[in-house]
Amino acid sequence: MEISNFDRSQILVQALPYIQKYYNKIVVIKYGGNAMINEDLKQAVMEDIVLLSLVGIKVVLVHGGGPEINDMLKKINKESKFVDGLRYTDEETMEIVQMVLAGKVNKDLVALLEKKGGKAIGLCGIDGGMITAVKHREKDIGYVGDITDINIQPVLDVINSGYIPVMSSVAGGDHAFNVNADLAASRIAAVLGAENLILMTDITGLLRDKDDESTLIKELNVSEVPALKMQNVIKGGMIPKVDCCVEAVRRGVKHAIIMDGRIEHSILIELLTDAGIGTMFR
Amino acid sequence: MEISNFDRSQILVQALPYIQKYYNKIVVIKYGGNAMINEDLKQAVMEDIVLLSLVGIKVVLVHGGGPEINDMLKKINKESKFVDGLRYTDEETMEIVQMVLAGKVNKDLVALLEKKGGKAIGLCGIDGGMITAVKHREKDIGYVGDITDINIQPVLDVINSGYIPVMSSVAGGDHAFNVNADLAASRIAAVLGAENLILMTDITGLLRDKDDESTLIKELNVSEVPALKMQNVIKGGMIPKVDCCVEAVRRGVKHAIIMDGRIEHSILIELLTDAGIGTMFR
Amino acid sequence: MEISNFDRSQILVQALPYIQKYYNKIVVIKYGGNAMINEDLKQAVMEDIVLLSLVGIKVVLVHGGGPEINDMLKKINKESKFVDGLRYTDEETMEIVQMVLAGKVNKDLVALLEKKGGKAIGLCGIDGGMITAVKHREKDIGYVGDITDINIQPVLDVINSGYIPVMSSVAGGDHAFNVNADLAASRIAAVLGAENLILMTDITGLLRDKDDESTLIKELNVSEVPALKMQNVIKGGMIPKVDCCVEAVRRGVKHAIIMDGRIEHSILIELLTDAGIGTMFR
Amino acid sequence: MEISNFDRSQILVQALPYIQKYYNKIVVIKYGGNAMINEDLKQAVMEDIVLLSLVGIKVVLVHGGGPEINDMLKKINKESKFVDGLRYTDEETMEIVQMVLAGKVNKDLVALLEKKGGKAIGLCGIDGGMITAVKHREKDIGYVGDITDINIQPVLDVINSGYIPVMSSVAGGDHAFNVNADLAASRIAAVLGAENLILMTDITGLLRDKDDESTLIKELNVSEVPALKMQNVIKGGMIPKVDCCVEAVRRGVKHAIIMDGRIEHSILIELLTDAGIGTMFR
Amino acid sequence: MEISNFDRSQILVQALPYIQKYYNKIVVIKYGGNAMINEDLKQAVMEDIVLLSLVGIKVVLVHGGGPEINDMLKKINKESKFVDGLRYTDEETMEIVQMVLAGKVNKDLVALLEKKGGKAIGLCGIDGGMITAVKHREKDIGYVGDITDINIQPVLDVINSGYIPVMSSVAGGDHAFNVNADLAASRIAAVLGAENLILMTDITGLLRDKDDESTLIKELNVSEVPALKMQNVIKGGMIPKVDCCVEAVRRGVKHAIIMDGRIEHSILIELLTDAGIGTMFR
Amino acid sequence: MEISNFDRSQILVQALPYIQKYYNKIVVIKYGGNAMINEDLKQAVMEDIVLLSLVGIKVVLVHGGGPEINDMLKKINKESKFVDGLRYTDEETMEIVQMVLAGKVNKDLVALLEKKGGKAIGLCGIDGGMITAVKHREKDIGYVGDITDINIQPVLDVINSGYIPVMSSVAGGDHAFNVNADLAASRIAAVLGAENLILMTDITGLLRDKDDESTLIKELNVSEVPALKMQNVIKGGMIPKVDCCVEAVRRGVKHAIIMDGRIEHSILIELLTDAGIGTMFR
Repeated sequence: MEISNFDRSQILVQALPYIQKYYNKIVVIKYGGNAMINEDLKQAVMEDIVLLSLVGIKVVLVHGGGPEINDMLKKINKESKFVDGLRYTDEETMEIVQMVLAGKVNKDLVALLEKKGGKAIGLCGIDGGMITAVKHREKDIGYVGDITDINIQPVLDVINSGYIPVMSSVAGGDHAFNVNADLAASRIAAVLGAENLILMTDITGLLRDKDDESTLIKELNVSEVPALKMQNVIKGGMIPKVDCCVEAVRRGVKHAIIMDGRIEHSILIELLTDAGIGTMFR
Repeated sequence: MEISNFDRSQILVQALPYIQKYYNKIVVIKYGGNAMINEDLKQAVMEDIVLLSLVGIKVVLVHGGGPEINDMLKKINKESKFVDGLRYTDEETMEIVQMVLAGKVNKDLVALLEKKGGKAIGLCGIDGGMITAVKHREKDIGYVGDITDINIQPVLDVINSGYIPVMSSVAGGDHAFNVNADLAASRIAAVLGAENLILMTDITGLLRDKDDESTLIKELNVSEVPALKMQNVIKGGMIPKVDCCVEAVRRGVKHAIIMDGRIEHSILIELLTDAGIGTMFR
Repeated sequence: MEISNFDRSQILVQALPYIQKYYNKIVVIKYGGNAMINEDLKQAVMEDIVLLSLVGIKVVLVHGGGPEINDMLKKINKESKFVDGLRYTDEETMEIVQMVLAGKVNKDLVALLEKKGGKAIGLCGIDGGMITAVKHREKDIGYVGDITDINIQPVLDVINSGYIPVMSSVAGGDHAFNVNADLAASRIAAVLGAENLILMTDITGLLRDKDDESTLIKELNVSEVPALKMQNVIKGGMIPKVDCCVEAVRRGVKHAIIMDGRIEHSILIELLTDAGIGTMFR
Repeated sequence: MEISNFDRSQILVQALPYIQKYYNKIVVIKYGGNAMINEDLKQAVMEDIVLLSLVGIKVVLVHGGGPEINDMLKKINKESKFVDGLRYTDEETMEIVQMVLAGKVNKDLVALLEKKGGKAIGLCGIDGGMITAVKHREKDIGYVGDITDINIQPVLDVINSGYIPVMSSVAGGDHAFNVNADLAASRIAAVLGAENLILMTDITGLLRDKDDESTLIKELNVSEVPALKMQNVIKGGMIPKVDCCVEAVRRGVKHAIIMDGRIEHSILIELLTDAGIGTMFR
Repeated sequence: MEISNFDRSQILVQALPYIQKYYNKIVVIKYGGNAMINEDLKQAVMEDIVLLSLVGIKVVLVHGGGPEINDMLKKINKESKFVDGLRYTDEETMEIVQMVLAGKVNKDLVALLEKKGGKAIGLCGIDGGMITAVKHREKDIGYVGDITDINIQPVLDVINSGYIPVMSSVAGGDHAFNVNADLAASRIAAVLGAENLILMTDITGLLRDKDDESTLIKELNVSEVPALKMQNVIKGGMIPKVDCCVEAVRRGVKHAIIMDGRIEHSILIELLTDAGIGTMFR
Repeated sequence: MEISNFDRSQILVQALPYIQKYYNKIVVIKYGGNAMINEDLKQAVMEDIVLLSLVGIKVVLVHGGGPEINDMLKKINKESKFVDGLRYTDEETMEIVQMVLAGKVNKDLVALLEKKGGKAIGLCGIDGGMITAVKHREKDIGYVGDITDINIQPVLDVINSGYIPVMSSVAGGDHAFNVNADLAASRIAAVLGAENLILMTDITGLLRDKDDESTLIKELNVSEVPALKMQNVIKGGMIPKVDCCVEAVRRGVKHAIIMDGRIEHSILIELLTDAGIGTMFR
């Protein structure tokens, strides 16, 4: 990169109003998809988070870990039974889910943040009774949980002690439960009164014409969502993600963003430059 | 149990001087062995810890989890290679160790403490850069680590926010490492200036005559240890445990106890009654 | 007492939910009657209070001291004049009342609590302008006072500095006044938003049939009181005590208990076991 | 008094450097003698103390109460036995001493301070285990105590909560003890690192010629005391008072003053004007 | 002055209820006129302020500085253009105004307060964005500003750090502006919820008959002002000053006083004696 | 500037280790020369400072203002008398110096910082008695002062309240004094234990060959200074600046930098990139 010192300083200075905007605000990032698998992207995300936390933005990282769970289930030759397309999570599967998420993915992320110079503490919904769930109420799919309660105090304690909380989507209650990480992030963002909820995905954002990236909807009001659903602009796998965003905004989060996590440093670009990445709900 | 209300109150009152003695003091408990496998004992230990924390004693729980690691390795058909009797911990094994300790055992203990009414947060040595290790320096046994540094701040932050820290013996550094839980507990107790270090074991304590429980050494000065080693009273598997105790006392821990974890509520009996359980080093 | 260590630990563990229930809550105890005269009972009460304060319950002790006042009046050959059964408290009598309560009974209790390992500070209603009274408004009985104002700040300051406040039922204002200790305790409990008000008495509690202890009313709603008065279940000397309880509950105290102070460790049994002692108003 | 508003303001302004000098400093006043008996003087002392506390000076008031004790003993027809001129304090006498000092004199002073607009809390050496004593070691005179330990924390807690501590010279330990109030004040001043110790007396101060008030020694270094004792300038009842002053200065109190308590507002004049009253040791 | 020590102490004691009344309250003083020009009066005002701050009254000093500005303009031979009797404040004039007020008058006052033993910090409305103004909206008179916003936080920060804030009537915004000091003081007093606003003037106060000082209106309710304006009792230069007082009282200031600053120590006499100086609005 | 979003984010990320290095550290910047006269440079410096303060670096800005003083003196037709090349600062000149520095330059900088989104408070050495000086001791040049004392508390109070302190080189004492801003900055940096002292100048830095910019000495140990003086590498006007740096480092400042203030954003480039600007003493 042939960028002069002057240009470098200019870029730093241009970040100033954005840093001021988010100063001391909470940003909840649901981390997943390619950004979690691709090693370069992962490094970039961790760098972004450490930088954000240094410039005074309070980041809460929420993660799932589907691929790692699959790998582990394969290793123990566990075959998955599916109910309406959702994996039935029996006792043994739940054990694997908990181990992989809270023991492997979570601590690896913490280690990476620490290596980049951040101060991080890894938690799951069981710690401090943070996320309470019950068995999914619509159909019996084992220990897949519906969140019934969020006790945000431990997250606040960890933030106030100066750490970045890294949270696995494992909930407690009568049993350990596997909960949807997007939903967990949305609920946590709402309870924290976060400035932004960022869902990292593997898509460009909402496209009016799914085959034409130039039709990206950069910003929309949550009240426009029902119409877009009827027009089939929001459909399939996008529906639950959009619903998470809508829910968060309805409960007081300023902005919820479906972000293209395949772009390196997408978080930094979104938050600290005038370029927006993906679709922002407000 | 046919115990009158008066007797009950008497017993509570008799605990008074012990509660006063340990009030606001730190007690580090290395939890393992039978007390961790037997369900009744496990319940009893968790009840003890919650009670201690309620009466103002600051408990730090450190755990390993050998049997659970073995179960998981078996599940993935991982054969163990041994070097001088120590399991060679290759990359894949280390991954299992981390998952099982930090993801399974740790969070299950947290869940149990929460269920008993405690407030607990589960951590491992990676969180907040608490335990740093390097590869074992004597022989190459993979990711078995020697502790090089303890950063106690996160433990203090968690204690001061009112939680019981539950710590896995997994360390960070250039890689994740499996460290000896007794040693980790000993080092943590020393840095915290703990009142007591309790190592829960499956033996009665140090016996002068290994076949005669009546020869239990109830208390000894760490200066007496070398002689007892020469007399073969301390030998075999007891040596590293005793060394952990000696090291802790030398670094300022008031008492280190090798405790018989097979006795229900042994911790409570040790700390809150005039009965001692096991062998105390001072 | 032949109780095994295991049984001892069981009893401690069984206190756990009760300790959790009262943790950081305020309990106001009006101390008097036999429990104040009988030396064994007195020792037991003080042990109970120190234990409660150690397990995180904030106890406020309010006391009167009729018998000690009588002894002192006898010593100075002071004859008592009575008005409708109430002793006329002239200047000289009031001086004796203040001396005996604030100087003798109060400090003796503080000394006993300190000896048992508690941290206590003795106050009366004059200190910090805590209790203000005026002359009894119904009839002229000298310096018998009606409480007009409670300034609770000094009690809170003493509690927050970590001491057990021990309070004499002497009030300030234009003069020193002798106020009813039950009433003072009831008012203090109300202003503090106490969890429990405990009035120690020399009776078993409210009995439906005064000659049959098995007819003890263990719990009743304050709305049931008028009916019980009409039925003569509540009558005579019980009326003012019951009224104190009703008043406290009406002003926000969770439970008010007329407790049998003749039972050793009745406070501990009431608060930390599943046995109830006396009659609880809610 | 015909003093113009200008003169009034001048006098207030002239107090400025003195207020600055004592701002946030601790002044321990041993209150006794005429200033405690004469009603006008008493009112003036209380006004002085409230004013000092308002302008940021931290006053600790220590008092005895010989005359009131005598009155009470007379009332109960208690004859006093003397040993070498000191009253033998038997059990019953000690009870009277405690009642009169901690219950009567102490609370009356608190009431007066509160009336003048101060915030005061009355304590004795038993409260919070502040003053521990043992039986006088030289001869058996009953419960006359020698101070063995001062626990200053409760005084600091009371000061820091914004109250003026008023302290009776009653100590705790194995029993209640009557301790010398001058000595108690001297010890408390030393432990508090007070700026000034003021002993209120009924004399003008140290006079070189006892019959000539113009020979008043206004200031002297504690090193000059032995010579003055040899010259009989310090003698009789003055010796223990001077010794209290010397002891206080030796233990770090800046100035100790034997003050003429018969002069109205002597404390204010001493501290807030350029006139000195009595003899100052440094 | 021939005033006895006793009289001196009496005067100090008589200030007691006034000190209690204003303890920890905020008093905003607009300082100007003769009291700012006459050296003796200036010294007296500074002494008064230091004394008030020592006895626990939180003083905020607001000042203008017309005469000093005139002197400086004369020095640079700047002729003043007038618009309807108000000086047109062009760029160069504004620069002089800012320099003289924030650099000369302000820092000289701070130096004087420090010399008298006070702790003071000099600020203007630009510091911390405290006073925001826009160009006067009625006519174009250059950089004469109308206050649009008060950010009181910096004043509170300075008070809470223990300093006396000394404030120049210079405001920020798009440019530096000269704002009316009376108005600035009135607005600051209102936002601070001050106990008193004191405007120092060169008149006796409101007189019913302008030629007869005995007709001074010592106190009046703000509701009486309109009538007094109609009766020409309030007229000319008094109108804006009275309006400042009315505005302050309407916005919650307890009392606003038009004070005769030509009387030495008028502030002290007003606040700490029973003599009132000038006219008080409530 | 044609820089991609990715490159922008890269530059932000590359600043990460530098931000971490200076996090919560104090940097004292002596601001002057071209960077203070040239409008673009001035804007850039203010942007740099606001950015630094947002990323957690505590900046203290110290300034002089020679050219502005000269302009003002010219305006009032004040001729300057020189003594050994130093301007004689008579009473009138000192007044102008104080007005210009503390009233004009200082507040203009504060206004600019506030406009850029910073929170700043302007002070001079008189405020809070921060800088005390006496007349220059070597020769009589009027109110040119030698610093005798630094009271750093007000600077800390302002920093801890979250503001950027902007300080004029005007000192207090018996009179206002004009002190050298480089020296003031050096002394303040030393007392604060600053990480860096930055002196902004109009030169490239120390050059081994004054005509060859490629001979810039990028870093040197303060012990090398005497030799460089002998070799005439450090000479003339550089000597006092170098001495300020040496003095600061000797008193504990980590690095002192003579920085080329003619380069836009030189502060940001120096602190947040791997390019160094000017000469660093350590």
